[in-house]
This record gives sequence, C-alpha cells and structure tokens, in this order.
Amino acid sequence: MNSVDIKANDIDRFFFLILEKIGVRPDVANYLIGGIIQASLRGVDSHGIRLFPHYLKGFEGGRLNKDPKYKFNKKTNSTGKLDGDHAPGHAAGAEGMLKAIELASDAGIGAVAVYNSSHFGAAAYYALMAAKEDMIGLSFTNATAHVLSYGGTRPFFGNNPVCMVAPCYGEEPFCLDMATTVATFNKVQQHKEAGEKVPVGWGVDDQGKDTDDAAQVASLLPIGTYKGFGLSMMVEILCSLLSGAPFGPEITHMFGTSMDQKRLLGHFFCAIRIDGFEDPAVFKKRMKKMMEALRSEPSLNAGVPVMVPGDPEKKFYRVRSQKGIPVPQSLLEQFNKLGSEYNAALSF
Amino acid sequence: MNSVDIKANDIDRFFFLILEKIGVRPDVANYLIGGIIQASLRGVDSHGIRLFPHYLKGFEGGRLNKDPKYKFNKKTNSTGKLDGDHAPGHAAGAEGMLKAIELASDAGIGAVAVYNSSHFGAAAYYALMAAKEDMIGLSFTNATAHVLSYGGTRPFFGNNPVCMVAPCYGEEPFCLDMATTVATFNKVQQHKEAGEKVPVGWGVDDQGKDTDDAAQVASLLPIGTYKGFGLSMMVEILCSLLSGAPFGPEITHMFGTSMDQKRLLGHFFCAIRIDGFEDPAVFKKRMKKMMEALRSEPSLNAGVPVMVPGDPEKKFYRVRSQKGIPVPQSLLEQFNKLGSEYNAALSF
Repeated sequence: MNSVDIKANDIDRFFFLILEKIGVRPDVANYLIGGIIQASLRGVDSHGIRLFPHYLKGFEGGRLNKDPKYKFNKKTNSTGKLDGDHAPGHAAGAEGMLKAIELASDAGIGAVAVYNSSHFGAAAYYALMAAKEDMIGLSFTNATAHVLSYGGTRPFFGNNPVCMVAPCYGEEPFCLDMATTVATFNKVQQHKEAGEKVPVGWGVDDQGKDTDDAAQVASLLPIGTYKGFGLSMMVEILCSLLSGAPFGPEITHMFGTSMDQKRLLGHFFCAIRIDGFEDPAVFKKRMKKMMEALRSEPSLNAGVPVMVPGDPEKKFYRVRSQKGIPVPQSLLEQFNKLGSEYNAALSF
Repeated sequence: MNSVDIKANDIDRFFFLILEKIGVRPDVANYLIGGIIQASLRGVDSHGIRLFPHYLKGFEGGRLNKDPKYKFNKKTNSTGKLDGDHAPGHAAGAEGMLKAIELASDAGIGAVAVYNSSHFGAAAYYALMAAKEDMIGLSFTNATAHVLSYGGTRPFFGNNPVCMVAPCYGEEPFCLDMATTVATFNKVQQHKEAGEKVPVGWGVDDQGKDTDDAAQVASLLPIGTYKGFGLSMMVEILCSLLSGAPFGPEITHMFGTSMDQKRLLGHFFCAIRIDGFEDPAVFKKRMKKMMEALRSEPSLNAGVPVMVPGDPEKKFYRVRSQKGIPVPQSLLEQFNKLGSEYNAALSF
C-alpha cells in the first residue's frame, strides 16, 4: 500500500486545529491527539491516527463530550472512582492515571476506576505515565464484546487488554500491552478485505464453530482457550464491577452503532511506587539486566534475537520519530477531505 | 488408578503429627497443611497432598525452615517487603497476604513482596484470604524456569501464575488461577509415564523445536506465544524485582536439586478493598449477575454449560468435602511408609 511519511508534529498541529474549530477543550484535544500519535509512533497502527476520523464523528454525533466535567470520588487514601463524563477515553484515562499517580505519591499505591468513558486506544499510553514517576503502571479497559466465551457460541467479554509498564535503566521502560485473543478483529478485517483466508484458531462463526473464512468470523478465540477468557473476565471485573460501569454485552459497540450513543466504557489504572518496595536505582538496573539477559539467550532463528515485550514498539518509535509516521494513501485522502471540510491544512 | 477417598480432617491430623514430631512450628505447619489440603479439595491435585513428602524432605534437608523469623519492612502506608526466612511458601505467603490485607484495611490497597520464600502451592490459597474480607485478592509467584522464551530455544522464566479472586453474592468467590503455558510439566510427565505422545504445541525439545515426544520436552510453550511469555515476565518483575529475589534461571529448581538448597522464591500479594471503589453489596450482586449471565449463555455442546473460572474447582470442593480426597494407591503407600518412619498413623 502506498503511504507518505509525515512528521508527528505536523499531524499533531492538523488534528489540534480541527478539534479546536469544533470547540474541543484544549486539554481534552491534547490527550486524545497525544494518545493516537504515540500509538502510531510505536507502530500500533490499529490504535493510531487512523482512528482520528472516528473520534471526530464521535464529537460531532454527541458520543464524545468536548467539555467534560470529571468528578473524582476519593474513597480511601489509595483508591477512588472517576466519572469521565463521556470524554474521549484518552482524556478520561489520562485523568484517571494522573489521579492514581497522585494517590500513589502519598500512599505508596494508587488505583482509580473510571466510568462513563469511551475508547482509550492503546493501554500503554497510561501505564507509561506512571513509569516516568518511577512507578509501575498498570492499565486496563473493557471493550466491545468480541471474545468467545469458554464453552459458548458467542462473545460476551471484549478483547480486554492487560498492560504493565516498568521503568528501566538506560532505555525506555519494559512495556507489556496485550489483548487476550490470538488475533485482533482488525487483523481479521484486513484478511477479509484482501480476500484471504484466516488461520483456523483465530476465530469462530456465529455458531461457535471454527472457520477459516474471514467474513464468517463472529467471535475471536482467546489465547489458551479458558485462560484468555479468564483474563478478559478479570479485566472486566476491575473495569466494570469496581467502577460501576456496564459489562460485557451491555457495552455499546465501537463501530456500527449510532454516533450519538455513549460507549459507557470502564477503565482501571494502578500506579505502584517502586520505592514502596525496593530502591528504584537497584530495581531499574536489575530490570535492564533481565532484559539484556533475555536478549542474549540463544535464539531459535539465527540473526533473530529473543525479544522482550515492547522491543518492537521501541524500534518503531526510533524510526518513526525520525522519518515520520507512514500515512497510507487512503487515510491521507480522508485527512485532506477533513482539511477542506474544517478549513485546516495538513502541511508537511 | 486405584485410589481411596480419605477425609480432609484425617489427612490434616496425620500431616500435623509428623510435622510436630520433626519440630515444625504449629503456625507454619498449619498454613502448609491448610494450603495443600485446600488444593486437593479444590481438585488441584498437582499442588495438593501429593507434595507433602516433598516438603517433608525440604524440612529434613534444610531447604525449609521449621522456625522462620519473618521480617516485615513497611515502606509506605500500602506497601512493604517481607523476608520469608525460608519458610514453606504456604506459610511465608499467608504471612505476606495477611500483611497486605492489614495494609489495605488502613490504606485501601495493600501490597507485599515476599523474598526468601519457597514453593507456595496454589496461588488461589492467598487470594481467597482477601476475598473473605470483601477485598479483591491478587497473588503471584515466580517458579522454576520452564517456559520457552519468545524466539529462544530454552526456558528463562517459570510457569508463573496469575491469580485473581473476587467475592460474590450467594456463592464462593470468582477465582482465576492460571499458569501461563498451554500445559503443565506435571501433565507432560504423566504422558511420559504412560508412554503417550503429547500434542504438538505443548512443548519443545532442548533445541527449541516442536516435539510430540513427552520424554523430549525441555521447555513448555506459553499461551499465545509472546503473550504468555510476556505474562510470565510481568509476574517475574513483581515477584523478583520488587522483592529483591533472584529471577529466571538463577532460581533453584524445585525438583532434581539438593534438599539443602534454598529455593529463594519471590511472591507478590495485593489486596484491594472493594469499598475503596464501590459498595461491596452492589459489587457482589453484580459479580453474581455476571457469573449467572455467562452460565446461561448458549453452549457449544448441549448439556455442557459455559463455565466461569473457578467453577470446576467449586464442584470438586463440594464433592471432596463430603466424600473425601481421593488418595492414589501409590501415594497411600508413601503415606503409610512415612507413618511407620515417624511413628504416626493415618487413621480413616
């Protein structure tokens, strides 16, 4: 697919101009844009700049609140609930994680459950904030029901991510950010569009039967069958039951639903001060030692070293921070159309 | 395999008598016995009473401390480190979780990293303690290196479990307690002893290549390839880097090592007060609603309902609390041998 490399700053300015024009509060716009640009820089294109037109429709349709009034209810010294007031998940999520960090600064650990939120993109965005403060960051969200229930025929829980970030000496933090299925719906969709079959094991049809026909995939298969399903449920308990948000099939689907419908998503953020246990300098040096020891392990395929979670994203980040983010032709056309519509130019 | 059902209380008394005779402190003996009997009652035989002879050798050989002096170092209002002083993991683990619960009672959340510990059996034992106090319990440990590194040829991390327990209205708590591999070493071992092949996908040989020969399995394959590997690493960071314990290949193997060698394992326990977020009565009713909704989902195989994590264990517990724990003939013989050796009778 043809694409043009565009510098993150140029995309940032373009997005900000549009959001400013429709009256999105600057801090809300900044967190949203920061989140999707970080995802694209880290090579996580599914949660990157390609979603900007979707979020824009969300603001226009009323799904997303341009001027959210967050309400934080601190319940103990280390915990509380945040009403996201239907802000984009990136903004409500950042607010939630910043509160968790604030609580942790005082109590050692801080955890915040967020409700009345929306799609928050890549979970790593929030957990990375904690690592900057010498804390371990944990970040979770519920999502559109896509994961096959164990022993069932249809999805109940979403492809709920598990994300942990820990700071490291001499390089960017360790970052695990994984969903609980073998493949994502996005990947299935790409195969469908290319007219390609999907491997058996990615998904099942609407009767719960294995299929290799991308167009028939109705539910995604979780990793390790009941284990991935259990992880999804664990995340849902944290995000929905602790926050008071709806769960499973009650959640408004991200796509194919009216843009005036609120998503009502829930998130859960936790920040853990490393000096609540161990000298952060010692921790970070041992983190580095662990990562380097893994990368020096004998590799299965000559020339392809063992990788640590987050290594591919670090490589993408280095390249794309320099060269720019590759914008596929079809997305560039969408951006140009938005440019004329909102009288904003994407200059690069 | 022939087996005899023996009541939990009878086994408990027999084990206690032996541990008493060799001078194990009563509280240490109680936590160890409580842990392995609970595992057997819940059907988790791999971590159950079959390991009693192994732990006994640990006490006799000096690996396990009969009279541990725990040292708790509280670092913030919600966090601290516990020196387990080479107690059996069940005892050091219980002490760690009880400290976490104590911290949470005050601060909202409590987390304790334990070092100088040993094999702690089933992770659920500790997380279930938190649920009794209307808290969510999380429990993790590192373990003997068994999991194939992603892109590597040999194991680095152990089959580190992820365990979360949450209280529920009208029934025993939700309990997810999962290791990060497709199958356990124990299961591979059983196939080897039975002269059966294992499915490709369970493990690899010492060159990192797929194998169906149980005797050749040198590393276990993680669920979802790099995802399960990432989960193992996440758990190792919590258990080793926060506690100061060794990690990965530095950890003494459970079996095939001298019984005077300390294991030096690390654990991580977290207790989260539900009322730090939500009214516990509301939480527990919604937990029940979620579990019932899942169990009522259309099932793939008629008559086999969708199951929630912990359902099989609840069923085992109901049956075995009544009928007793099935003790295979070979294990009964070991017990009888121990009986004569330590002048203790297993009466049933």
